[in-house]
Amino acid sequence: MTTAQLVAQILDKKSFLCIGLDVDLNKIPEHLLVEEDPIFAFNKAIIDATHHLCVAYKPNTAFYEAYGIEGWQSLEKTIQYINNNYPEIFTIADAKRGDIGNTSTMYAKAFLEDLAFDSVTVAPYMGKDSVEPFLAFKNKHTILLALTSNQGAFDFQTKTIEGKEVYKQVLETSKTWNNSENLMYVVGATKAEYLAEIRQIIPDSFLLVPGVGAQGGNLQDVCKYGMNSQIGLLVNSSRGIIYASKNSDFAQSAAEKAEALQLQMKALLEER
Amino acid sequence: MTTAQLVAQILDKKSFLCIGLDVDLNKIPEHLLVEEDPIFAFNKAIIDATHHLCVAYKPNTAFYEAYGIEGWQSLEKTIQYINNNYPEIFTIADAKRGDIGNTSTMYAKAFLEDLAFDSVTVAPYMGKDSVEPFLAFKNKHTILLALTSNQGAFDFQTKTIEGKEVYKQVLETSKTWNNSENLMYVVGATKAEYLAEIRQIIPDSFLLVPGVGAQGGNLQDVCKYGMNSQIGLLVNSSRGIIYASKNSDFAQSAAEKAEALQLQMKALLEER
Repeated sequence: MTTAQLVAQILDKKSFLCIGLDVDLNKIPEHLLVEEDPIFAFNKAIIDATHHLCVAYKPNTAFYEAYGIEGWQSLEKTIQYINNNYPEIFTIADAKRGDIGNTSTMYAKAFLEDLAFDSVTVAPYMGKDSVEPFLAFKNKHTILLALTSNQGAFDFQTKTIEGKEVYKQVLETSKTWNNSENLMYVVGATKAEYLAEIRQIIPDSFLLVPGVGAQGGNLQDVCKYGMNSQIGLLVNSSRGIIYASKNSDFAQSAAEKAEALQLQMKALLEER
Repeated sequence: MTTAQLVAQILDKKSFLCIGLDVDLNKIPEHLLVEEDPIFAFNKAIIDATHHLCVAYKPNTAFYEAYGIEGWQSLEKTIQYINNNYPEIFTIADAKRGDIGNTSTMYAKAFLEDLAFDSVTVAPYMGKDSVEPFLAFKNKHTILLALTSNQGAFDFQTKTIEGKEVYKQVLETSKTWNNSENLMYVVGATKAEYLAEIRQIIPDSFLLVPGVGAQGGNLQDVCKYGMNSQIGLLVNSSRGIIYASKNSDFAQSAAEKAEALQLQMKALLEER
């Protein structure tokens, strides 16, 4: 998917919501556990109920790997279901991969080509040659971890290298890499005030913003400091939407939570 | 496996060799491609031929994920084969994972509990709460990326934070985390001279050293600067061993390459 197609979808749906499909069998409605593939059954119901309210789905691969081969089958079925039924949706493999060059190529092929995700999240620690293999895929996107939403972000990311925080060094350095136009960035919403400075470094890039909702970020602040002329934002919510109810109405409840966020986004889009 | 058991194995086998099982179907002998599971058939032959010469096997998960569900089945069969037949061997899932706390817990469970690896490699960028879930597993080990062997290591890892390189900050900070006695570290052999300084920060920890062989590191220098009283080294070779031959003698050729390294290690162990 091109960035222009993503922007068009956002303007059409009046939403820049990304829904995190982080499925834990202990948290889904019990009546689904008798299904042949409870994870896929849950995802399918959530997707069918929310696809008109969001522009992206983001399964975190950890939740699928935790169930071994069956989990990978659920992930494969989920991405195929989205691609076949809602091809306008932007898909994100939240995998946080990264390795030396030839090995990163294997990961890139797995997520962007074989599973056919539109994008994959990548960790920056190993530098240029660990990220560029992901960037080489045309009309695919590499979402680089810059400033994450967890407490551990303060251990290294916000420390200063030569007067500049590590996450800003990551942003600046990554702009020099081959095919850097295919980069997006993870920026945690718990630090919305940082977004203004981040926008000075990467004015045009899309930001994937986790941490609105369960992790406490504020949507208005994110838009105030982070939105650009092409919107440039994907705001993620996972648990706050998909676990809205454990009863048979779980998909409808998820849709209500998603709609509440979408309506806020619509208002913020109209305000700008 | 406890660290003491690993040390005992090293002294017994006179080897601190780790063999990387990074299996690419384009590089294995063609006669194996007719097997039901060519990757596992290759690994099984390599393991049977080399287990007495090495103390650890390290499959890089990227090479298995690249083949989707079949790849995961090959990985599962490989770790089960090692654990069932050669339980003295230390196993490393080279996965380079890392995510926010509850998500890292899913990865830790997948690799350390379900697949029953002895250890897993983890990226430090997201800090304390992304690593501690891995450290919580008793008699399991978390191998933290510190200084990697690729060119991209110079993008961020060797930059200085408040007068100290990022990788040294990672080493020092990680020592303060809960269950830090379960930490080992990845330190690339292409920078053997750095090992002396690294040993000042973490004198007692085991180091996983990639980059000897294909990536050009020097075994003697690694031992000179990196060995401690408990040996404290696992030196990895992947392509240099497993792809020694594409013919029917591939396993025997791999064993010869492994033995050449093991004999160097034996001499270095006797010298100390």
